[in-house]
Amino acid sequence: MNVGGVPYRAIFTERDGREVRVIDQTLLPHRFETIRLKSTADAAWAIRDMIVRGAPLIGATAAYGIALAMRADPSDASLERATALLAGTRPTAVNLRWALEAAGVLLRGLSPGEREDAAYDFAARLCEDDVRRNRSIGEHGLGIFRDIARAGRQRASGGARQLNVMTHCNAGWLATVDWGTATAPMYLAHDEGLRVHVWVRETRPRFQGAGLTSWELGQHGVPHTLVSDSAAGHLLSRGKVDVVIVGTDRTTAAGDVANKVGTYPLALAARDNGVPFYVAAPSPSIDWSIDDGASIPIEERDPEEVTRVWGVDEEGVERHVRVVPEGTRAANYAFDVTPRRLVTGLVTERGVCAADREALGKMFGRQTARATARSTAPRPPPRPGG
Amino acid sequence: MNVGGVPYRAIFTERDGREVRVIDQTLLPHRFETIRLKSTADAAWAIRDMIVRGAPLIGATAAYGIALAMRADPSDASLERATALLAGTRPTAVNLRWALEAAGVLLRGLSPGEREDAAYDFAARLCEDDVRRNRSIGEHGLGIFRDIARAGRQRASGGARQLNVMTHCNAGWLATVDWGTATAPMYLAHDEGLRVHVWVRETRPRFQGAGLTSWELGQHGVPHTLVSDSAAGHLLSRGKVDVVIVGTDRTTAAGDVANKVGTYPLALAARDNGVPFYVAAPSPSIDWSIDDGASIPIEERDPEEVTRVWGVDEEGVERHVRVVPEGTRAANYAFDVTPRRLVTGLVTERGVCAADREALGKMFGRQTARATARSTAPRPPPRPGG
Repeated sequence: MNVGGVPYRAIFTERDGREVRVIDQTLLPHRFETIRLKSTADAAWAIRDMIVRGAPLIGATAAYGIALAMRADPSDASLERATALLAGTRPTAVNLRWALEAAGVLLRGLSPGEREDAAYDFAARLCEDDVRRNRSIGEHGLGIFRDIARAGRQRASGGARQLNVMTHCNAGWLATVDWGTATAPMYLAHDEGLRVHVWVRETRPRFQGAGLTSWELGQHGVPHTLVSDSAAGHLLSRGKVDVVIVGTDRTTAAGDVANKVGTYPLALAARDNGVPFYVAAPSPSIDWSIDDGASIPIEERDPEEVTRVWGVDEEGVERHVRVVPEGTRAANYAFDVTPRRLVTGLVTERGVCAADREALGKMFGRQTARATARSTAPRPPPRPGG
Repeated sequence: MNVGGVPYRAIFTERDGREVRVIDQTLLPHRFETIRLKSTADAAWAIRDMIVRGAPLIGATAAYGIALAMRADPSDASLERATALLAGTRPTAVNLRWALEAAGVLLRGLSPGEREDAAYDFAARLCEDDVRRNRSIGEHGLGIFRDIARAGRQRASGGARQLNVMTHCNAGWLATVDWGTATAPMYLAHDEGLRVHVWVRETRPRFQGAGLTSWELGQHGVPHTLVSDSAAGHLLSRGKVDVVIVGTDRTTAAGDVANKVGTYPLALAARDNGVPFYVAAPSPSIDWSIDDGASIPIEERDPEEVTRVWGVDEEGVERHVRVVPEGTRAANYAFDVTPRRLVTGLVTERGVCAADREALGKMFGRQTARATARSTAPRPPPRPGG
């Protein structure tokens, strides 16, 4: 998507196809800087310190981390070292593990002399797959937006009424390679001239909505308004939202959705007001090994994310300020689970489907969880990692 | 309630009964300071600049503002001037208007020589009424807490299990003269040794939960944990909340509740998980002139409350930091309406009653709104003013 009129991806290579750059997301929205990842150690640092975040982008960065290792030293020992280093950064991210396993299988089958090219090709393909997948989600989501806009126009008997979309957190292009998941239909709709306006929930405690989603929509020129997370109920109850679309960190085989904390109450408020609630769910987010979202363990993060806020002061200096009495105990649950009964539909790269085991299994030609559970060894479900 | 072991009220007179002091709430939670209101102008400034806030406390401050005027000059002209000055501070606060009207009726019937004493007596009585009313709400709420704790103990077959209460915003003693409304049962429960633990929602955008409720519970020694507003759904869905109790800015005659934005999604999440949702509703919060909460206009406040956050930095300096890209458009809806179908009960000073027209009318011996609507001239409903 565009940054100041220039198209960018969240990770990209320079013209030589070998130098890897990412956007430093820890500086957003206050500064836009790209940094070069010179080594596997740089890639590992970027993932661990959240220079990059979002499951798809973490996977892509890990793949380039392996490529950088193969460029420096294509030996077996180098491959093992790089894999171990990257795997230890955010051990719970599903895409990270998948990218490393796939790269390992591919590269171990090759001679050291073939590995650099193959590793870069693999990383580039992984990125293209992500972009294609998200673009596809965008097309299917756009179909939903068009239908809702058409119905709205009919109700309003003509006139180019604005389509009000609400989203949570950042399931945007910054969390992927490009397009984003929940944002993909917004960008497509905006680019084709559908009058779309996005309600961005700020997404406490880390403010990914306020800081990242506002920033990327603003840079691409998509009209949007920031609101506190708590304002969603009011907006929905007064008819100011036509459709809600959010991302997902993990979707169970039965359609339950683990996503950034606050998604579940948003889904409740959408349901209570008859507003459709969609989840942009690329297939890698689907965990075919479990059905019941209630069994997903929820990551607890540093309470300081709740008690201290980061921003820029009047002089443009970046600072943390404490918003609570000193010593206040806080808890910081990072995700919640939205039960499938509240989900109008899952927008996948293959199309829109109901949030239930049969529809999802059929769409991806998979056995349902109960069937696979018999044939694979049970394993603890990974924690959501976004 | 206690501040550092010393009992305080949010507004009080010095030993001479004439000097009026309030806690400067704009400095909380980072500094605790009381300031003397020397004149009606001081009282008006304190209300307008939110040195004091919360409908009951605003009413009490206005009453003392009139007393200060009568002390300086008990003439009719002085009374008119003071009333006009105070009425213009926060024109939408119900208790403010009521206090000024009642003081006016009382004082105009007296000779100037009698007015100073009468005005101070009126203000003192208004404060005592508030304290008694809140204490009563506390007793009735405590009954609910005891019942829930007992049921919990039975389920857990003995053992002093902690009672987990969740609240929103600050319906605490800082918003009243003492006890608070939603907090009154928490203080009583804690003081009598019931093991109560409070989940405090931070309450974006102004952080009244993080800054004020955490502070007052902490000063009084009530165990509590701060969470982001969005975490409520997760906590409720995992059985970590036994009961929710919040305050109200305005309760319709039929039991709909206008309260700080975020209350409605909280009520939805409580209902979805079978957790009782109570509203501490002192009788002055009841608007007998309307039934339907959906008709209440909702105050939009300065968007900067959403885009900029106030706190103290690492060196203890108070600062505002911006958390969004420069120029981001934001909207700041201050209240929402929780429909009565989601309210388990209203905790009033007369007892607990169902959130419906008949129960509420019966408890207060009032005709219902439909009946009164015929006999009184229609007037636009006041906006919630907290």
